[in-house]
Amino acid sequence: MKFNHIALVGLGLIASSIALALRSKDTNIKITGFSKTKKTREEARKIGFCIVCENYEDCIKGADLVILCVPVGVMSDVTEKISPYLSRSVIVSDVGSVKESVVVEVQKKLPKGVFFVPAHPLAGTENSGPSSGFATLFENRYCIITPSDKIPLEIIKKVRLFWEKLGSNVIEMEAKHHDLVLSVTSHAPHLIAFAMVGVADDFSKVTNSEVINYSAAGFRDFTRLAASDPVMWRDIFLNNKDAALEILGRFTEELFTLQKAIRKKDGDYLLKYFERTRKIRRSIISAGQDTAEPNFGRKQ
Amino acid sequence: MKFNHIALVGLGLIASSIALALRSKDTNIKITGFSKTKKTREEARKIGFCIVCENYEDCIKGADLVILCVPVGVMSDVTEKISPYLSRSVIVSDVGSVKESVVVEVQKKLPKGVFFVPAHPLAGTENSGPSSGFATLFENRYCIITPSDKIPLEIIKKVRLFWEKLGSNVIEMEAKHHDLVLSVTSHAPHLIAFAMVGVADDFSKVTNSEVINYSAAGFRDFTRLAASDPVMWRDIFLNNKDAALEILGRFTEELFTLQKAIRKKDGDYLLKYFERTRKIRRSIISAGQDTAEPNFGRKQ
Repeated sequence: MKFNHIALVGLGLIASSIALALRSKDTNIKITGFSKTKKTREEARKIGFCIVCENYEDCIKGADLVILCVPVGVMSDVTEKISPYLSRSVIVSDVGSVKESVVVEVQKKLPKGVFFVPAHPLAGTENSGPSSGFATLFENRYCIITPSDKIPLEIIKKVRLFWEKLGSNVIEMEAKHHDLVLSVTSHAPHLIAFAMVGVADDFSKVTNSEVINYSAAGFRDFTRLAASDPVMWRDIFLNNKDAALEILGRFTEELFTLQKAIRKKDGDYLLKYFERTRKIRRSIISAGQDTAEPNFGRKQ
Repeated sequence: MKFNHIALVGLGLIASSIALALRSKDTNIKITGFSKTKKTREEARKIGFCIVCENYEDCIKGADLVILCVPVGVMSDVTEKISPYLSRSVIVSDVGSVKESVVVEVQKKLPKGVFFVPAHPLAGTENSGPSSGFATLFENRYCIITPSDKIPLEIIKKVRLFWEKLGSNVIEMEAKHHDLVLSVTSHAPHLIAFAMVGVADDFSKVTNSEVINYSAAGFRDFTRLAASDPVMWRDIFLNNKDAALEILGRFTEELFTLQKAIRKKDGDYLLKYFERTRKIRRSIISAGQDTAEPNFGRKQ
């Protein structure tokens, strides 16, 4: 059930973390990688987490698992470029944060006989690039896979085992449902964080240094999400437009209801609301999805 | 310039952290404390960070610094209760997150000859109660003081030195400006976090367990702020209504502009926006106001 040669297309945070995690568990596996950006290839080569190739062909040839680790906006183009080098019955997967639209586009570009098992490891940090990867990134995190019902069960099982080996809990769901769930737990929170950081940066009655110096009172938490990779996030919003806008619409309704309660000085409503939201954090901590330490246990 | 006897009115996270910080620096100072809640007094007594009194009188009598560590909604009532026991030329301070309205109300209830130096240490965690305090809470954090121009300079200096001893950088500003700055860096981010957590909890197409399990993709960061003390936050919004609503209005404008860019597929606008917000986090880290470690350095 094991793969012998894994090709990583793209050499950012996720690709380097996959390679480092594999290296920490299994030294026999061959890992090749390619990025179209020369600087990224050089950075990756310096770290040495995989064999860095100079073109798609050298990277892909002979691989039995190809993982697309590029922003969702270029998945389709990259698939077109690698498709001549894909051998029959190779497994292609990805790590994109949007599934429905991307799966359709990638599938169109793949040659017949290739098995596509889309995946999304729910893991990452606000940093990007090959130097930001680390071997434990996927431990105790979920990885959602959204294969079509045409994919044989043993192929799905192979991909499942791959992610489980890296420490992830693998869950299967429909691509459309994935995109809705992630709009709630990831895409909307990120856009809201980007917007709040934008307001603070733009509000002339409060100076930029005031915003920065007094950020520990709450604002700094938003800046972590708003520091995530700009290209990746542009592509996510353009490719998951409908679900993102639906959740943002609901969020605005909710915010307006709270604003109205403030305006009308409805303290009871606010208190009940805040008591309810407090409980959700406890559930997340119990589920092992965040630290129980105050302030995320940070040192500053 | 030192105080001999400090009275803490209220025994929550901030009061216990003040006492623990003082104890870690100066063993001679007398610290008394009182909370109207019996359970809180018992919890505080068990930890032993101060002399826990059974009424306001015993707590206040003889103190040369009285710090109001209660939610801003009860500051005025509590001031009325302690005022018979305040000796002439005692210094009264507070730790409330809202200044303008609260300062006016507290000042009204104070007897003549008492010096009121309002303060707001920008420090805390999502936890509350006496057990959540710790001695290093104020280290490298800002403390904003908003004294009126009638307060003698040597009195202000004494309060400054007090907070500096606990590790804080003390900044003086107008109460009104404080409330605006904190709306940006604290109050609006908290309300937004409460609203986003409320949406997630309420959205029936996505189950509660999905929200919890997949929260590491961004949402969990919001749950920390939304887990903060409900009574404290109700009082903040009711007492800083205008500034909070102003910032929330600006935030909504900004969010709508981003939503429109998504709807129109304006990738250039999104990319430039996200590149700008990314820079702000770097400034916060350079200013020593957050950790540079990815994911706040958390262990989960």
